[in-house]
Amino acid sequence: MSETQGPENYGKVALIGLGLIASSIFWAMKRAGMDSHVTGYARSAETRETAKRLGLCHEIVDSAEEAVKDADLVILAVPVGAMGPIAEAIAPHLKPGCTVSDVGSVKKEVIEAVRPHLPEGVNFVPTHPMAGTEHSGPGAGFASLYDNRWCLIVPDGASEEATARVEAFWQALGAKTEQMEVEHHDLVCAVVSHVPHLIAYTMVGVADDLRRVSDQEVIKFSAAGFRDFTRIAASDPTMWRDVFMTNKQATLEILGRFTEELFALQRAIRTGDGQLLFDYFTRTREIRRGILQAGQDTDAPDFGRVKVEK
Amino acid sequence: MSETQGPENYGKVALIGLGLIASSIFWAMKRAGMDSHVTGYARSAETRETAKRLGLCHEIVDSAEEAVKDADLVILAVPVGAMGPIAEAIAPHLKPGCTVSDVGSVKKEVIEAVRPHLPEGVNFVPTHPMAGTEHSGPGAGFASLYDNRWCLIVPDGASEEATARVEAFWQALGAKTEQMEVEHHDLVCAVVSHVPHLIAYTMVGVADDLRRVSDQEVIKFSAAGFRDFTRIAASDPTMWRDVFMTNKQATLEILGRFTEELFALQRAIRTGDGQLLFDYFTRTREIRRGILQAGQDTDAPDFGRVKVEK
Ligand SMILES: NC(=O)c1ccc[n+]([C@@H]2O[C@H](COP(=O)([O-])OP(=O)(O)OC[C@H]3O[C@@H](n4cnc5c(N)ncnc54)[C@H](OP(=O)(O)O)[C@@H]3O)[C@@H](O)[C@H]2O)c1
Ligand SMILES: NC(=O)c1ccc[n+]([C@@H]2O[C@H](COP(=O)([O-])OP(=O)(O)OC[C@H]3O[C@@H](n4cnc5c(N)ncnc54)[C@H](OP(=O)(O)O)[C@@H]3O)[C@@H](O)[C@H]2O)c1
Repeated sequence: MSETQGPENYGKVALIGLGLIASSIFWAMKRAGMDSHVTGYARSAETRETAKRLGLCHEIVDSAEEAVKDADLVILAVPVGAMGPIAEAIAPHLKPGCTVSDVGSVKKEVIEAVRPHLPEGVNFVPTHPMAGTEHSGPGAGFASLYDNRWCLIVPDGASEEATARVEAFWQALGAKTEQMEVEHHDLVCAVVSHVPHLIAYTMVGVADDLRRVSDQEVIKFSAAGFRDFTRIAASDPTMWRDVFMTNKQATLEILGRFTEELFALQRAIRTGDGQLLFDYFTRTREIRRGILQAGQDTDAPDFGRVKVEK
Repeated sequence: MSETQGPENYGKVALIGLGLIASSIFWAMKRAGMDSHVTGYARSAETRETAKRLGLCHEIVDSAEEAVKDADLVILAVPVGAMGPIAEAIAPHLKPGCTVSDVGSVKKEVIEAVRPHLPEGVNFVPTHPMAGTEHSGPGAGFASLYDNRWCLIVPDGASEEATARVEAFWQALGAKTEQMEVEHHDLVCAVVSHVPHLIAYTMVGVADDLRRVSDQEVIKFSAAGFRDFTRIAASDPTMWRDVFMTNKQATLEILGRFTEELFALQRAIRTGDGQLLFDYFTRTREIRRGILQAGQDTDAPDFGRVKVEK
């Protein structure tokens, strides 16, 4: 079997949604030398035009139904809230025995929304590539987005063979894969991603609101810590609205823990309990050490940011 | 006047405290070709030994009193809570007419703690270089830490000449300077730095606490947003305890606003008000745009992080 005929190679792949995640999939497939024929569809004519101009996909078509025709692998790469309606629309047009996958950041509600529409014999293999930037749209993707990042696979009754092929596909794109149970997935993501995003959005909103501190000052002095919040809080509003609307339970649970802890620290500040703060701040250092040891970040000053010259 | 005899050049400079901030001052002075004689003191013999080994300062002495003898510029670079006692100790040994400065992250309480001890005729010029990393100690400093960063000057009755010299000094180290009124300083810093740090510490604490999500998973999947919080939350516990103990009022005020906003978003999640979330997330994008336009960050994927190979 030549490299381009491995299990990760599907004859025809359909990308539904042509934003950051889908366009990065296409560029990474190209880099990997896969010879699949890739069809793409996005909701707006504007995005479809941009995709054509960028050379994204081998063919851009005007409906999701048309895109999935004859496809061996269909990847739903639209906001989480749009997955159900799309699945319903494409279901009658799916090739028997094909594999349907999605890349949504939330898994339980997506599975519940997609699964009932899929015909018997179609394999559904939900995934979640843990990679992204704050940019979105067809022009945002790049081939190395998934390199060394985790792509979580949340099995939902697909055949072992179908699941293994999707895993091989993501590995060919550069990712490391791991299977995770659906509810655990949504909880882990609430902790490492969803609640941190909500908090960052909130902090940026507070700064923006504060009339006594001008936006100008917030921007000028942002390197003191705030800047990293603004990066996170620049992510796509539609995507994040959908994440919070669909991962409600885990988000609210982690938020509850967060405010409980925050109130304890706030109380220590008010009462002058320096020891409590010191102990808390000492404990949190350990996690950072673990992340550096695991090679998940750089220790370079200023995050190894490319130097910004004025 | 040759470059090394400009107003930024002091004949003798004393650095009290030899951590990230002081060591970076020394290396930046060296890079700028200043010919001041620099004396250093730190509390522990261990830090003093390390400083000697690293070639930090021209002379390391065993007491703050000795360090400030004959100094034209004395810079207090110890945690905020240690400023008052140090000022009291050195006061009788200060050269008449010299300039005392500090680099504390909080200004109101530091000024109140230091000012009463200083003799008539000594100029006190409080400063706050808005630059740092999560590392601390004598080995953490580097010459370019202040390049293009802001150093805020909070005038407290020093002569115009003394203030201008301190500004020139910081500019020679690479910083941009700006004067700011003391209460406004503490509020701005609460917004752009102190509360973001507290929130990051809290989020990392929550993740660490959560038994159902292992530390291992938190570390593995940290790149999804959480990682940037751990970076902030790895900062020195003593420094940050002191910041919150001394900038209590502004911190509690901003924290109050933060929880108020967070509850509004939490409520929107609970009640399914997607429009509120969408509008909120759209608004916060603007601030990010301002930061990029102001050259305060890079737009590169993954913050322009140096690629971490496994
Ligand atoms: N960005 C991340 O960090 C990240 C990471 C992991 C997973 N994900 C998940 O990946 C998925 C896509 O995210 P993305 O970052 O690629 O988003 P994106 O860049 O905003 O692109 C979204 C794409 O979906 C299309 N779309 C939106 N609503 C649609 C609808 N109702 N019907 C049909 N098409 C629709 C958009 O078309 P138009 O351009 O025509 O509107 C666009 O092509 C989301 O489920 C997200 O949760 C994102
Ligand atoms: N790091 C930042 O991001 C940052 C940014 C702007 C301003 N600042 C401010 O700069 C100051 C110094 O911070 P840093 O980051 O340089 O801290 P650091 O790296 O932890 O160094 C602190 C230095 O102060 C000495 N010290 C501590 N307690 C002392 C005491 N009671 N008496 C005498 N010396 C004492 C320490 O000596 P030993 O090593 O012997 O304990 C050490 O040399 C703080 O006021 C901080 O608020 C920090």
